[in-house]
Amino acid sequence: MVNLEVVLVELFVLILLASIASVICKRLEVPVVVGVVLVGIAISNITIDGQSLYSLLQLDQEENEAIFKVFAELGVIFLLFIVGLETPLHELRKVGKVAAMVAVLGVVIPFVAGLAFMLLLQFETLESLFIASALVATSVGITAYVLKDMGMIETIEAKTILAAAVIDDVIGLVILSMVSGIAEGSGTSLLDIAAVAILAVAFVLLVMFATYLIPKSRSKIKEIKPTGRWHKHLSPLPFALIVCFGISALASYLNLAAIIGAFLAGMLFAEFKDTWPAEEKLEPINEFLVPFFFLQIGFMVSLSSMTGEGVLLIAISLTLIAIATKWAGSWLGARSMGKGSANVVAMGMIPRGEVGIIIASIGLTAGVLTDSLYATVIFMVLATTLIAPYMIRWAIKRRGNWKGAFKGAPSKFREI
Amino acid sequence: MVNLEVVLVELFVLILLASIASVICKRLEVPVVVGVVLVGIAISNITIDGQSLYSLLQLDQEENEAIFKVFAELGVIFLLFIVGLETPLHELRKVGKVAAMVAVLGVVIPFVAGLAFMLLLQFETLESLFIASALVATSVGITAYVLKDMGMIETIEAKTILAAAVIDDVIGLVILSMVSGIAEGSGTSLLDIAAVAILAVAFVLLVMFATYLIPKSRSKIKEIKPTGRWHKHLSPLPFALIVCFGISALASYLNLAAIIGAFLAGMLFAEFKDTWPAEEKLEPINEFLVPFFFLQIGFMVSLSSMTGEGVLLIAISLTLIAIATKWAGSWLGARSMGKGSANVVAMGMIPRGEVGIIIASIGLTAGVLTDSLYATVIFMVLATTLIAPYMIRWAIKRRGNWKGAFKGAPSKFREI
Repeated sequence: MVNLEVVLVELFVLILLASIASVICKRLEVPVVVGVVLVGIAISNITIDGQSLYSLLQLDQEENEAIFKVFAELGVIFLLFIVGLETPLHELRKVGKVAAMVAVLGVVIPFVAGLAFMLLLQFETLESLFIASALVATSVGITAYVLKDMGMIETIEAKTILAAAVIDDVIGLVILSMVSGIAEGSGTSLLDIAAVAILAVAFVLLVMFATYLIPKSRSKIKEIKPTGRWHKHLSPLPFALIVCFGISALASYLNLAAIIGAFLAGMLFAEFKDTWPAEEKLEPINEFLVPFFFLQIGFMVSLSSMTGEGVLLIAISLTLIAIATKWAGSWLGARSMGKGSANVVAMGMIPRGEVGIIIASIGLTAGVLTDSLYATVIFMVLATTLIAPYMIRWAIKRRGNWKGAFKGAPSKFREI
Repeated sequence: MVNLEVVLVELFVLILLASIASVICKRLEVPVVVGVVLVGIAISNITIDGQSLYSLLQLDQEENEAIFKVFAELGVIFLLFIVGLETPLHELRKVGKVAAMVAVLGVVIPFVAGLAFMLLLQFETLESLFIASALVATSVGITAYVLKDMGMIETIEAKTILAAAVIDDVIGLVILSMVSGIAEGSGTSLLDIAAVAILAVAFVLLVMFATYLIPKSRSKIKEIKPTGRWHKHLSPLPFALIVCFGISALASYLNLAAIIGAFLAGMLFAEFKDTWPAEEKLEPINEFLVPFFFLQIGFMVSLSSMTGEGVLLIAISLTLIAIATKWAGSWLGARSMGKGSANVVAMGMIPRGEVGIIIASIGLTAGVLTDSLYATVIFMVLATTLIAPYMIRWAIKRRGNWKGAFKGAPSKFREI
């Protein structure tokens, strides 16, 4: 039985600390994300009498851990759903070609560079393959948060990043299924991998096609049944939640990231915005939950796992490679947008996420990766996530003539 | 490890079914609560191949169960917090005396009647004492929801119910500590019980005193430090959540109901409304979570436990006694308000909740109560909860000249 009193205390402490951190960050003009992640790192690494704050708060108990993981996941799912709501499909299609280039080059270059680096350091081929694979997949949660926070989610750069993230996730899935096959020893046939990829692509295209069809079909159905005796009783929020959770679950079932499903769901639900305006109801839910996403990132950091000899050095090198090569690949892909915009897109693609960690876990479980190489990947994922808000802000500032090209909230932007 | 894909599927199915139920209820002009609770009952009692839908959805797995229990609890906590936000302290104090009468008579009469009924049926004294104790404590969650839903939370009747619920909870706590003492065999000394009661009363009075002091102290602090460099960075929602969770946790720690803490916290936070308007942000969070509270009520219903011989008869009799005596006691306490208003207040006090179930669980664990008597108490709690929305609506209609006395949303009221 879950102890509700303990959960209330945990909620109190976590929100209190996250709020203190975000007030301080705002005062010092540091990205709020960074402060909240640091609180998470502090909670899981500061020990009193040999016990971390994390375990003193009973956050390590299975049920409590589950609760806060779900809060974190729902936070980032709602975030991407809201971002999807603000992204019309036809504008996403405009950036399709550039986004595909960004995604492909942003995968190939980090993979090749990571493989070369590991082989140069005399690691085995299999080990090197796993590490290189863990370098490729972008996780767009933090980027979406920063762009949204800056009122820039409606810019062409944001759309390119989001479209590239969808394609990137499909590529990441293919790599994941290959790697799983290798880890199982059997190797996976090209046919199996093709099946996984085709299913994922079919799902993405199907949701997009549905989004495309809805405006047409809705006007027709209205002609047939103009009264809507039933649908006037359907509130916007539950309807939005049903669409969001349904498509996210389906994406997750097809081994795509749930947040990619949420993004597509948001885009689809945007077609119902007129009758069911759910946006202003989702924002506060997101504001409640999203700090748990940042805290969770911090909880994963185990400073003690970085103490092995040379581990930190490899971790830092790998992180620099991850940043430089993802930037270079994405920049090359987006260069037709102009240097400034390509820089913003490339910075937005830098943060890695769950897929990298999942690949590393598979490697660890299969005995291909050592504990310290696993810790190295976790370090890379977290470092790219933590550094991204700074890089994106810097790129946007540097881009300069934002007034002409950016829609969104310039007054908010000026504050940055 | 919690399986996030499963949680997403559960969220999808539960919200989908709850939404379908609530659309149907609105169309048939039945209280939405009833429909959603029925969905909960269906999920936990309909079996396919010997497995209930509840277990097919993996809701019986410890972690998933914990997640949805927390959602349910947070739903009702936010509900009472919002109700507290709409209840100024000075108006609550106005109804203090009447509320005290309602609470005391609404406890004494059900207790005496329950005891007499059980002794008449030849149950043992100890058994009868436990059942009688389980009859007393009102749980104000459903009532608050119905009154809020009808736009009547600012009426004098609503305030009387809420004030009575606070006092009722303290009395319930005293009874709970006596009953625990008896169950442990040792019996609890009067001194211990007095200590529990004094702590609870002190807590309630302290929060109320703080609420009273805040407006005065705030104007003074403003004079000292008019700029507020820091507090402009504090967003309304996190601040509200910190106050809500902090005081709810404290109430829970003192063995009061967490929702009573949330109500007091809301009253206190209302004094910050001007600078930190959190209300419109809490409403959507509540709209997301509160259906899980109603579903959870339904999940607890085990239809099969009611099949024992005579169990259903005793359960129904006990429920009728619970309804009639709580109504009579509360009505007597509130009769100075006029018959119509006293009727509304009395109906609002009918639903029982966790305290009754906790007392029955203690009895079951101590071997004082049989399984079927335990099931009887659960039946009574659920039946009073399910019937309350109808009774309250009926009482409000019957009250008649609501136009003069009721503030709130008369246009919404007319729809009922």
